[in-house]
Amino acid sequence: MYHHAGFFCRTIMHCEVTQMKLTNEILSEILDEVRPLLGQGQVADYIPALAQVQADKLGIAVLTNEGELFQAGDAEDGFSIQSISKVLNLTLSMGIYTPDEIWSRVRKEPSGQAFNSMIQLEVEHGIPRNPFINAGAIVVADMLQTRLSAPRQRLLEFVWALSGDTHIVYDKVVARSEMKHSDRNAAIAYLMRSFGNFENHVLPVLENYFHGCALKMSCVQLAKTFSYLANQGVSVLNHKSVITAVQAKQMNALLATCGLYDEAGEFAYRVGMPGKSGVGGGIVAIVPGEMTIAVWSPELNSSGNSLAGSKALELLSGRIGRSIF
Amino acid sequence: MYHHAGFFCRTIMHCEVTQMKLTNEILSEILDEVRPLLGQGQVADYIPALAQVQADKLGIAVLTNEGELFQAGDAEDGFSIQSISKVLNLTLSMGIYTPDEIWSRVRKEPSGQAFNSMIQLEVEHGIPRNPFINAGAIVVADMLQTRLSAPRQRLLEFVWALSGDTHIVYDKVVARSEMKHSDRNAAIAYLMRSFGNFENHVLPVLENYFHGCALKMSCVQLAKTFSYLANQGVSVLNHKSVITAVQAKQMNALLATCGLYDEAGEFAYRVGMPGKSGVGGGIVAIVPGEMTIAVWSPELNSSGNSLAGSKALELLSGRIGRSIF
Amino acid sequence: MYHHAGFFCRTIMHCEVTQMKLTNEILSEILDEVRPLLGQGQVADYIPALAQVQADKLGIAVLTNEGELFQAGDAEDGFSIQSISKVLNLTLSMGIYTPDEIWSRVRKEPSGQAFNSMIQLEVEHGIPRNPFINAGAIVVADMLQTRLSAPRQRLLEFVWALSGDTHIVYDKVVARSEMKHSDRNAAIAYLMRSFGNFENHVLPVLENYFHGCALKMSCVQLAKTFSYLANQGVSVLNHKSVITAVQAKQMNALLATCGLYDEAGEFAYRVGMPGKSGVGGGIVAIVPGEMTIAVWSPELNSSGNSLAGSKALELLSGRIGRSIF
Amino acid sequence: MYHHAGFFCRTIMHCEVTQMKLTNEILSEILDEVRPLLGQGQVADYIPALAQVQADKLGIAVLTNEGELFQAGDAEDGFSIQSISKVLNLTLSMGIYTPDEIWSRVRKEPSGQAFNSMIQLEVEHGIPRNPFINAGAIVVADMLQTRLSAPRQRLLEFVWALSGDTHIVYDKVVARSEMKHSDRNAAIAYLMRSFGNFENHVLPVLENYFHGCALKMSCVQLAKTFSYLANQGVSVLNHKSVITAVQAKQMNALLATCGLYDEAGEFAYRVGMPGKSGVGGGIVAIVPGEMTIAVWSPELNSSGNSLAGSKALELLSGRIGRSIF
Repeated sequence: MYHHAGFFCRTIMHCEVTQMKLTNEILSEILDEVRPLLGQGQVADYIPALAQVQADKLGIAVLTNEGELFQAGDAEDGFSIQSISKVLNLTLSMGIYTPDEIWSRVRKEPSGQAFNSMIQLEVEHGIPRNPFINAGAIVVADMLQTRLSAPRQRLLEFVWALSGDTHIVYDKVVARSEMKHSDRNAAIAYLMRSFGNFENHVLPVLENYFHGCALKMSCVQLAKTFSYLANQGVSVLNHKSVITAVQAKQMNALLATCGLYDEAGEFAYRVGMPGKSGVGGGIVAIVPGEMTIAVWSPELNSSGNSLAGSKALELLSGRIGRSIF
Repeated sequence: MYHHAGFFCRTIMHCEVTQMKLTNEILSEILDEVRPLLGQGQVADYIPALAQVQADKLGIAVLTNEGELFQAGDAEDGFSIQSISKVLNLTLSMGIYTPDEIWSRVRKEPSGQAFNSMIQLEVEHGIPRNPFINAGAIVVADMLQTRLSAPRQRLLEFVWALSGDTHIVYDKVVARSEMKHSDRNAAIAYLMRSFGNFENHVLPVLENYFHGCALKMSCVQLAKTFSYLANQGVSVLNHKSVITAVQAKQMNALLATCGLYDEAGEFAYRVGMPGKSGVGGGIVAIVPGEMTIAVWSPELNSSGNSLAGSKALELLSGRIGRSIF
Repeated sequence: MYHHAGFFCRTIMHCEVTQMKLTNEILSEILDEVRPLLGQGQVADYIPALAQVQADKLGIAVLTNEGELFQAGDAEDGFSIQSISKVLNLTLSMGIYTPDEIWSRVRKEPSGQAFNSMIQLEVEHGIPRNPFINAGAIVVADMLQTRLSAPRQRLLEFVWALSGDTHIVYDKVVARSEMKHSDRNAAIAYLMRSFGNFENHVLPVLENYFHGCALKMSCVQLAKTFSYLANQGVSVLNHKSVITAVQAKQMNALLATCGLYDEAGEFAYRVGMPGKSGVGGGIVAIVPGEMTIAVWSPELNSSGNSLAGSKALELLSGRIGRSIF
Repeated sequence: MYHHAGFFCRTIMHCEVTQMKLTNEILSEILDEVRPLLGQGQVADYIPALAQVQADKLGIAVLTNEGELFQAGDAEDGFSIQSISKVLNLTLSMGIYTPDEIWSRVRKEPSGQAFNSMIQLEVEHGIPRNPFINAGAIVVADMLQTRLSAPRQRLLEFVWALSGDTHIVYDKVVARSEMKHSDRNAAIAYLMRSFGNFENHVLPVLENYFHGCALKMSCVQLAKTFSYLANQGVSVLNHKSVITAVQAKQMNALLATCGLYDEAGEFAYRVGMPGKSGVGGGIVAIVPGEMTIAVWSPELNSSGNSLAGSKALELLSGRIGRSIF
């Protein structure tokens, strides 16, 4: 019996003490508890299309590795996934590039800076700190551009396959609005190009990058899509291998240290799960070996992460006694 | 039976597939595998006393939460624990300050900078990024100075109790050598004082801080001392509660995002354990719920972390299939 | 008689003690004295077209406000004036914009940074430090683009008029080479656009900017062209007013504090004249009220200023006892 | 006769056109013109002793190289000269150190930063940008400490000799208040020490440095004291040589590029004279070869320079047609 083996199986004892079976009711209670936070954050307004979202939306969905789906609130409403798409692009790149190819062009360290700062990028000679800040994600988009014939279509098909839902589309209004306000990202791309860390024309790469950001998905779709990260690289939905178990572990490590902008430490401290947020108000969080969580509330805190969303994850982590620490 | 509940108990299935029982032999094999790295790093030389260490030392010790001790190599040789002492000081402060008192004076975010950079400290108005960079550790030392009558003696007794070994001492030569080369840390302290984030006279606080760094401990002693972090706050050795289970979880979160200087991301990616390194070449790593690991090899990589030590942890993580991700 | 009034007319006494009449021989002697420096600097190589220049070229020309021309060495050879063109563009902008319009978009302070750093630009929200670093010059080019129908042609005609020489042309090879290596300048322009400090399409503005840099002129032509700065805004050549006397004074003040990249202080200390350098190895220097000097030697020092050229100016300043201090 | 030689003697023609004989009335008119600015700036309040000054004080004094003294307003009231003392210390150091000794420890470039920033100091390895920012002035104070047996007394005697007034004293209340708020300057000193650019104990050097800042002098005393800078190194008062003519010229160059904190460019543009300001509201300005000006008004602009004082200098420069450009 493995749970006699001593140091390996902490979960047994653990379970008996603090864990609670997940239900839709628990999720509803958590949403009720965080609802008073609505009105205390700020909807992202750097592009007009995002600013028009209904600010008091709130939803959550959990997919266990066994395939059970739990949800509450506006869990089936689509929203702009924004930076969460950076994980999808990195996952795609892992399939067509070697680790050395990837990690020579982008590093794996937290930035300690605002998500779109150019200062560090200049000091560190055009090599972005990690693939989840804009600069890093744009490098990954450049890599996809180089090796995929139709990266935008490929990303969409990838999401369709992972979510099992071919109704997911790019929100063209958002994509166009992003492109109209893309000067800073263009500056980032040109700066990397000046250091030799950018291969293609800037504008088409940005177009593709912004389309990823403009994917419109619901919490339920996101939980399904990212289930491979909780399940050793294998999609819980279709049981297909997306990346290797080792790659899934590595991706979770990256998410844990770099996934929440300049708030990764605080999120680890309070929630204790690898995760990725977007300025659309979505957060995806992973309990490796167990479940994938997606939460959504459009109002952001000062670090650009969903205010009510991160609180909901903190409560969920405490309620079901699950974190990686 | 909770381990039937599905998504909660990942460890069961997990165990059946990838885990291997730990033995002294496994540890010896790992040390043999990393030994070729000796000679490829740099012993810390910023103070003469550290530069004199024997560069080819190599040791590892593991204490499971069940109290089994495994070890290999120079696991009983004492060395300068240096920054590992920052965890001890923070643990002490958690007992005498509220979270709000602590986290208003030091943050919880990775710095994205060299461990002793003053730039960020100035830009962020004297509030250090986290308690494991020098500035943050000096703030914690300042807090201890304010509320403890004899902080240096208190720290020593704390280590004696945790390790069960009253032979542990401060290496006076190292402490004095640190103090002679303390200008940059004095600059850091004075800068924080200019922002109102420092309460005591600078030199006595630095004296105490450096004494912590000058603690001479072995891998075995370290594994015992830090076992409370793997065991929900309770010392595996004497079964006394050091901090609460929640605090232990939080400390592990801090270690995972900030414990390895500017290499936390890389360490998470390769090793996948919360950990804390010191420029003496020691690293302590935690598998929450399972075991505490201490490794030592004096030669450092360019980020100031033990070169062979971090490789040994990477191999161990792979061999026994344990990480937090 | 005002020159008896005491404090006004320092020059009288001054003249009797230290000054020496300028001659072609003095200029030749100075060139001989600096010639040993040839071989100790570095020809600019960031674009291939510049790297091909003959490294041991050396020339100087002086035009007095009375219209006397002195020259020595390769004073009639054309070379790429590069950043010296920034003064021409700023002069043009002074004719079509009010001071408030100009100085709200670019400041007047030394940067304390490398000429093409983006860090300061981000920290200071897209407002460049001064019109002689790249960012500032690109803003000025953007302003010209907005209000001139054919800025490139206008600049050329302006230079023809000032130099009295319609053979001056843009070196198309250099301009094309600059454009091929324009990524960093594009990054700068897009960053300013992201802060709302850029009005036109980036590429056409850069094209015009680079054409200015690619003007091919000789020392003699430069001394004639910039004579208005020494002569209260009036061209010594054609006696036409280019800018007002106050504007000329202001331009000299800008040149004295910001004209020599990150070496303005050293240049003031050694030479004591307002001046502007270019990475083609040219430097124009002004003795207000007296003369305009142009010197050329392609090898640069570590700050990007002509090594032999700035030494020649230092010697000239000492020999004829003229500086602004 | 050299003043016939053409390009040397710009002053002749110049005089006939724009200059006006200086009188006390002109100075009074200028003060009346700037008086409306009183109330629009901020008295320095970083130390309590400075904050207590009467905010609406306004005075000006001019000493010509012929020894004529003009003055208006509160020109004989003593005030804290603060950073103006940096020029005195540098002058003293020029007498006991070679240029190489001085300029290897401090540079001559504008900082492009706030006067007490540590960022640049860290990036540039403990070598301050120039002797007029705090870091540079503290290095100079360290040099004086090394070679003078009683630097504080020496400075006082130096000022007595230059001003011809032995009633000038250190304001002990200000000096003590500075010392109480010296943390940031201590941080700067320790940081330089960590880079090997500081030789003595920090606190005694700071004590001396702050005493210089705490010199209490009037505009009249300042104009007399600094007359050597306008007069080729020779005191107008006692006709003794303080520094060489070349050194005076170099000092003026340093003042022109670095003397007004992060506003040297603006000051050159508007006033066109080498100058040095202090947060006590004083500014000393030099017209080389002609006169020394001191102005005082305690309220500062956002760059830390006297608001009404710098405006008065701008008006004076325009009225008498004198600037270096």
